[in-house]
Amino acid sequence: MNIKYFLAFVFSGLFLVGCNCDTPSDKEVVVTDPLPSWNQGSVKQSIINFVTQISDSTHANFVPVADRIVAFDNDGTLWAEQPVPFQIFFTFDRIQQLAKSNPAWASTMPYKAVIDNDSAAIQKFHSSDIIQLVTKSNAISNIDDFDVDVQQWLATATHPKLHKKYTDLVYQPMLELLDFLRAHQCQIYIVSGGSTEFMRSWVPDVYGIPSQNIIGTSLEIKVAIENTIPVVSRTEVLAHYNDHAGKVISIANQLGKRPVMVVGNSDGDLEMMEYADAGKGPRLMVYLQHTDAAREFLYDEKVPSGALINGLQVAKEKDWTIIDMKNDWKTVYKTVE
Amino acid sequence: MNIKYFLAFVFSGLFLVGCNCDTPSDKEVVVTDPLPSWNQGSVKQSIINFVTQISDSTHANFVPVADRIVAFDNDGTLWAEQPVPFQIFFTFDRIQQLAKSNPAWASTMPYKAVIDNDSAAIQKFHSSDIIQLVTKSNAISNIDDFDVDVQQWLATATHPKLHKKYTDLVYQPMLELLDFLRAHQCQIYIVSGGSTEFMRSWVPDVYGIPSQNIIGTSLEIKVAIENTIPVVSRTEVLAHYNDHAGKVISIANQLGKRPVMVVGNSDGDLEMMEYADAGKGPRLMVYLQHTDAAREFLYDEKVPSGALINGLQVAKEKDWTIIDMKNDWKTVYKTVE
Repeated sequence: MNIKYFLAFVFSGLFLVGCNCDTPSDKEVVVTDPLPSWNQGSVKQSIINFVTQISDSTHANFVPVADRIVAFDNDGTLWAEQPVPFQIFFTFDRIQQLAKSNPAWASTMPYKAVIDNDSAAIQKFHSSDIIQLVTKSNAISNIDDFDVDVQQWLATATHPKLHKKYTDLVYQPMLELLDFLRAHQCQIYIVSGGSTEFMRSWVPDVYGIPSQNIIGTSLEIKVAIENTIPVVSRTEVLAHYNDHAGKVISIANQLGKRPVMVVGNSDGDLEMMEYADAGKGPRLMVYLQHTDAAREFLYDEKVPSGALINGLQVAKEKDWTIIDMKNDWKTVYKTVE
Repeated sequence: MNIKYFLAFVFSGLFLVGCNCDTPSDKEVVVTDPLPSWNQGSVKQSIINFVTQISDSTHANFVPVADRIVAFDNDGTLWAEQPVPFQIFFTFDRIQQLAKSNPAWASTMPYKAVIDNDSAAIQKFHSSDIIQLVTKSNAISNIDDFDVDVQQWLATATHPKLHKKYTDLVYQPMLELLDFLRAHQCQIYIVSGGSTEFMRSWVPDVYGIPSQNIIGTSLEIKVAIENTIPVVSRTEVLAHYNDHAGKVISIANQLGKRPVMVVGNSDGDLEMMEYADAGKGPRLMVYLQHTDAAREFLYDEKVPSGALINGLQVAKEKDWTIIDMKNDWKTVYKTVE
């Protein structure tokens, strides 16, 4: 029997992921690193070990598929978020678009600042201004029409400093982690402060996470019956703000159980991590720390979005897993189409 | 080669569900009816054909797994609901229990009527009384404590007329349908007017549908941080009433896409059926009509719960699938432990 072993990477956790059998007497056993963009080390190993254990029915840490829930933050965790979460760029572009049919906005703040591209005024926005603009940009009389608008924007818009399409700023190591989790039948959910509707327009294609597994900040929706057919509209009324304790609320509401693994990057993820970690059985809490000024961003206490201060302290106290982007990732942004 | 065929049932849609190979030269191919408690006929066949087609990648009606969503009503669809949805019995028993620590209820309506088992007063309840009792029975200071209470109740309580445990009043044909859908990788959701929290306590065990796929009427929940750990409580404030158009709202909110198949039994399911049916691509709407006075119940226009009037008319106009319980089901209640 002619057996060839292809060891793509040498590391302590080896995975048998492929077996090409041309003929019974000519087997190839391909052992491949499931996370090739991650450097070897304790972080990578802790993730691999945990996922392997919870999906191994003979292991003490085994978790049934129905409970094998992994919750991911999105902005700053699965894709970049500087200088502001990318949905804000969409919001501003969409306000410009909607302004054509809303002439009064030309003299009404906060719309006027956006229309005039008045960066001084935009810098002074309160969070209520941002919320007003975001809700206005997401409200729509028939939700079926919304996805195409976002997709068209994503197809052409580019990041103002990095000059890449936003969907090219997703993190390659995280795409690999998503695939690895799926291969182990983990139920992946996004639990993000971003708008559910915005994410649902592109997340299924880009991350392979279906719309029913995307939980975000949401607006109230209404139903009108038109010729017996319900037509769903999205109002401008905020229904749920999905950050900090809001993430715990949406998890309790929509999942009804604690995730066994949570991956986040900011203090806004701390409450859901504490909530998940307080559950019985195996748990893995993972923080991504943005330490990479050269390839991505180095977050300090004054970072405009996604500060990690309390969360980092708790993570160290509780021995959670902390990804050091600079040292743990070989690659940052998506490398494969 | 010794091949034996076991044809359990002869019907036009045959399914190969098992292959026991003792030795390479001794194969048994077992062809089994996936819905043995359903009589042969157009209803059974329409369901089998639809599910087979949407999961066949070579068929024009193929639907990817992520979109292969089937929504079920619960009360009157997956288990019986007469004379009232069973959650009402739980509610009354729990009010009796909670009354011990709420002495003022002894003289306060609607609690007094329940405590005194005053059927004349209970008959006169307005829906607001029922909602008040249900919300009171579901409110709890730590949601982690609730499931056990419901499970203990289900383990001992019996139906006042049928003298069976409530979980023995689930429909055997529907259990088979759930298994059949799962075997075809359908994503099964419950979209019910019952309380999410009540259902989550027993539905995963009884139907095999996980808590994250259970959508119902819900109360507002709150989070308190106790020694850094979030503790989730359920208030008495109604957050969402999940019936009629409310089912469309919860589907739009939590799934973000239309189910391809909806199974219900009452006018309260009509809006979600119309919404699903208005989507592009293959769709199957299924109404269960309660026609079986001998084995279950014969619903007329005055049935206390779950009337099917407008829905039946629309179903006939649109040629939806209508299960006639009396004629389409060989067995009604669960037969297997």
